[in-house]
Amino acid sequence: MTAVDFEAFVDELATVSGTAIMPFFRTALGVEDKSGGGAFDPVTEADKAAEAAIRHRIRATFPSHGVMGEEFGSERLDAEFVWVLDPIDGTKTFIAGMPGWGTLIGLLRNGQPCYGMMHQPFTRERFSGDGGSAKYRGPGGERALRTRSCAGLADAVLYTTTPRLMQEPERRIFSTVEEKVKLSRYGGDCYAYCMLAAGFIDLVIESNLQPYDIVALIPIVEGAGGTITTWDGGPAQAGGRIVAAGDPRIHAAALSLLQAG
Amino acid sequence: MTAVDFEAFVDELATVSGTAIMPFFRTALGVEDKSGGGAFDPVTEADKAAEAAIRHRIRATFPSHGVMGEEFGSERLDAEFVWVLDPIDGTKTFIAGMPGWGTLIGLLRNGQPCYGMMHQPFTRERFSGDGGSAKYRGPGGERALRTRSCAGLADAVLYTTTPRLMQEPERRIFSTVEEKVKLSRYGGDCYAYCMLAAGFIDLVIESNLQPYDIVALIPIVEGAGGTITTWDGGPAQAGGRIVAAGDPRIHAAALSLLQAG
Repeated sequence: MTAVDFEAFVDELATVSGTAIMPFFRTALGVEDKSGGGAFDPVTEADKAAEAAIRHRIRATFPSHGVMGEEFGSERLDAEFVWVLDPIDGTKTFIAGMPGWGTLIGLLRNGQPCYGMMHQPFTRERFSGDGGSAKYRGPGGERALRTRSCAGLADAVLYTTTPRLMQEPERRIFSTVEEKVKLSRYGGDCYAYCMLAAGFIDLVIESNLQPYDIVALIPIVEGAGGTITTWDGGPAQAGGRIVAAGDPRIHAAALSLLQAG
Repeated sequence: MTAVDFEAFVDELATVSGTAIMPFFRTALGVEDKSGGGAFDPVTEADKAAEAAIRHRIRATFPSHGVMGEEFGSERLDAEFVWVLDPIDGTKTFIAGMPGWGTLIGLLRNGQPCYGMMHQPFTRERFSGDGGSAKYRGPGGERALRTRSCAGLADAVLYTTTPRLMQEPERRIFSTVEEKVKLSRYGGDCYAYCMLAAGFIDLVIESNLQPYDIVALIPIVEGAGGTITTWDGGPAQAGGRIVAAGDPRIHAAALSLLQAG
């Protein structure tokens, strides 16, 4: 069974999670602070409802598969196939009513990302990939995702969700790249990686990511021709400090600055 | 003739501009640098096509009205009614493929904002107001816009498009407010004011705005129960440094810090 066989199933998971989430979008939410009174880290009822719905469907269809989710923890992480879920990546964007959040559904096979989808149920967009190819489906139709060419940092558009999520020294190191690009913008969450895959931006740099923030995006970025690693050039699926680029020259240039920092 | 009479006409302008813009969204764009080689300030063909279409419709229907637009300058600014247009507010967001940009159509009567609309043709959303009331229309239906209650800055969610647009001393002054809020987020462009009107965020603070960046948003924010002024408490329609709040207590608290800075 190859990763491609999962495509229809992931579509079904996206539909199920979107149906669970949308009644909560732009309504008064019961926001729970899972950090126990510290940093503002909202978890919504929508997040929980969607993850429960996805897990139920996975258990019913592939009982031997493992699952790692933001809301309900991990099970069977030693299975050949492990699903990695973040029903609402960008919860702060979600509670602000903005459309930049998305549902991340990733699949690891023997620890390697083999399929991923970002689903935005409000804009009705699906970005998916298997590492070899990636595609977009939305109100305007379906098309292949391809990153764009970009010769150097001076021509690059950079996104990060917010530099406020970075601690020193990450923030200082990030600045060494930010100072060299044509345009640096904040916001975007998972949407930024998808716009990179679609060829509209060139570089995404973030820190403090969890596996469920990034696993689903790796086969999309790589399938579109991009490169995604940690700041030290290692595999991205464990999260942490992540750099994604559409053009390998931009990835190399950013990596060089990130490692020098 | 009251402002309300313009509602159907503004709907028509929004439809016309959306039709002009959408073929250019997420396609390779010819980006022109209108700042002459300095800061990155893209103007898209979409911007020009939409403003030309709106101006044509205004001239044909209300030949005595004035028009002030980002792309094609000003005419008849001494007229009783003056339209204030920004076909794509958030051009940097637009070229990044993100849905946070919007079309701003504002109307001044004797220099006072009397009607405004923010139209997002990709998400098919319209936010409009006349200073006395405001409403939302989108894929999910129509509803009144109302700001939410927020007792103090410690409970407030703040948005600004990007602190990188601020020069010192604005940035330092902005920080005095940012340090006091529950959550500060970047991005949003005109969308942030609409989310404030809809009751999902509490405060928007920006600087260096042009009249066409803000006139359309004033009757929406005020119509939803919010307050919008310059940092020194003056009328917002000339642009510059702007502070908008959903709850008057938050506006007063922010104003006090912005003025002390």
